Amino acid sequence: MKINNELTRLLKIAYPVIQAPMLGATTPEMVAKISNLGGLGSLPVGGLSPAKTAELIRKTKTLTNQPFAVNLFANSFPQPDVEQFDRMQVFLEKYCADNHIRFERMSVADLKFYPYEDQIDILLSENIPVVSFTFGIINDEAVRVLKEKGVVLIGTATSLKEAGIIEEKGIDMITAQGIEAGGHRGSFLSDESLPQTGLMTLLPKMTEQINRPVLAAGGINSGKTIKAAFVLGAQGVQIGTAFLGSDESLAFPAYKAALANGTESDTALTKAFSGRWARGIRNTFMDEIEKAGLIIPEYPIQNSLTTLLRRNVQEMNNTAFTNLWAGQSHPGTELKPVEAIFQRLIKEYDSLGE
Amino acid sequence: MKINNELTRLLKIAYPVIQAPMLGATTPEMVAKISNLGGLGSLPVGGLSPAKTAELIRKTKTLTNQPFAVNLFANSFPQPDVEQFDRMQVFLEKYCADNHIRFERMSVADLKFYPYEDQIDILLSENIPVVSFTFGIINDEAVRVLKEKGVVLIGTATSLKEAGIIEEKGIDMITAQGIEAGGHRGSFLSDESLPQTGLMTLLPKMTEQINRPVLAAGGINSGKTIKAAFVLGAQGVQIGTAFLGSDESLAFPAYKAALANGTESDTALTKAFSGRWARGIRNTFMDEIEKAGLIIPEYPIQNSLTTLLRRNVQEMNNTAFTNLWAGQSHPGTELKPVEAIFQRLIKEYDSLGE
Repeated sequence: MKINNELTRLLKIAYPVIQAPMLGATTPEMVAKISNLGGLGSLPVGGLSPAKTAELIRKTKTLTNQPFAVNLFANSFPQPDVEQFDRMQVFLEKYCADNHIRFERMSVADLKFYPYEDQIDILLSENIPVVSFTFGIINDEAVRVLKEKGVVLIGTATSLKEAGIIEEKGIDMITAQGIEAGGHRGSFLSDESLPQTGLMTLLPKMTEQINRPVLAAGGINSGKTIKAAFVLGAQGVQIGTAFLGSDESLAFPAYKAALANGTESDTALTKAFSGRWARGIRNTFMDEIEKAGLIIPEYPIQNSLTTLLRRNVQEMNNTAFTNLWAGQSHPGTELKPVEAIFQRLIKEYDSLGE
Repeated sequence: MKINNELTRLLKIAYPVIQAPMLGATTPEMVAKISNLGGLGSLPVGGLSPAKTAELIRKTKTLTNQPFAVNLFANSFPQPDVEQFDRMQVFLEKYCADNHIRFERMSVADLKFYPYEDQIDILLSENIPVVSFTFGIINDEAVRVLKEKGVVLIGTATSLKEAGIIEEKGIDMITAQGIEAGGHRGSFLSDESLPQTGLMTLLPKMTEQINRPVLAAGGINSGKTIKAAFVLGAQGVQIGTAFLGSDESLAFPAYKAALANGTESDTALTKAFSGRWARGIRNTFMDEIEKAGLIIPEYPIQNSLTTLLRRNVQEMNNTAFTNLWAGQSHPGTELKPVEAIFQRLIKEYDSLGE
């Protein structure tokens, strides 16, 4: 599967396999292993403090000399609606009490967000070769300083309209995120309903209409799905869920078991955990928030409100009350070292022949 | 693209291209042309009277000597809820008055449904070689008499669970309907939420788990998408929207223009027109029914309630108030004779090489 195309040349990688940035699950070890194997690891730092960002980058660098990407969240920040915030907090507090989960009240004043703008200097000084982003497009000044330094930029699009805007901004390549994908939707145009286009439609249209290398994301977890993505015009693939069950993933044991189990796709889109649409394995918390009918505060406010709850629940190894991000293809996810999973993908692809 | 596999052998066709049955748009001419070209036409007769069923079959037979499929709706019939029915009718009546559309009241007693059970004898006496069905599985007795006569049976599944049940019933092949597909969802298990799996996920899983030839449906409209479907394990493809803009289609002119126009997928799932989930180009009627918040009577009751409304609107060449079934890939649909569209698909596929 060693492929010499515009994408692998730009990214200076042997295999056009990008590990998806999965905040909360991706470790420096996962990133470094993928890059050491000839793919491209992606270190997610979206919403992290500059200090944490620098720490994770430096840790990753101790584990690999190969290029890896750093992934930013390019969202803007909403003004909190205090009433909405309070109503959601009251709901969550009672919900936690009913379910014996520890909860600590916070106030709007406690909300602390770190914008990506404060991370750009670190990426520059650490000589990061590839910067990917989602939830929007980094601003023109950030694009300019990063490109000046030769950094390759990758945007995320869930529609052709988003891809067109990313292309116009001079971004080097685009990840086409199909509806199959796990975790947060990268959608960033609020003037339309959430794009929900399958990769079978999105990928050929985007690769025909956009003059940039396109990465396929969503449902890619095997040699066959990688090959199909290439047939549909992708120059590379971005793979998340297949690495989520790896030994190098922070996913907690019962979450990994849920990824591996079953045959049918049992995922759904939800705003319950973060205030932003994301795909996860359907669970009690998603259903209960939906039933409650409350307005969910926008990202990242809801994300902050549920952070402690989710952390506590994960420590209890409980899958009912925390986010279980997963793509539609998750059943049967392998619980193995990253290296074994990566090698399986290459081997499966190569066994398909031309 | 002439392919010799289990599917083409069973169906006795040269090309593994099945024209999707599109009730209301498919004509005997469309069916016959596809079959004459070496694919398999599908004549939709779901919900039609035995007399109309026989008439359409006989008409098609005058136009081709090649095998074609007849497609049934295998749904059961709900008991009408008179209050729900009345509330919806009052809404529709006012809606039509506001929008200068002719409307005629009907009563629950006027509802007349034709079950597929009454069509089986015609299929047998007309020696139909292939019978496909959706919205459920035809009953054991129908399976038995059709199979006894050597008829090839094709079921429709939107999930692995549905496919498993179809396989157990001894059906010969299965259409995997991805979320990209236009028109009605074939889903038939009411004990779960509507499956919404993309073809990139559904197809490889179904072809690996089910020991029957699988047809890919949803978003297939080009050589590349056909090839991707084969890579993912399909033995054939079922193509609807790409033939919906053909000269042989009954789609009205403004509907055809809407299929051809635009670049972005602007479709959504709705129950507004028929009481069953279906994908169409988003329009005013869909939005207004959703806003009204009324309970939509189950299929085929809502279908009957909106039949006259839709017919009148279509005659006015108006796209705002009638169903515009379309798959996610519809933008750019060609408005040409069926033959030109079929030949383009073959040519595009062949030009991709091995």
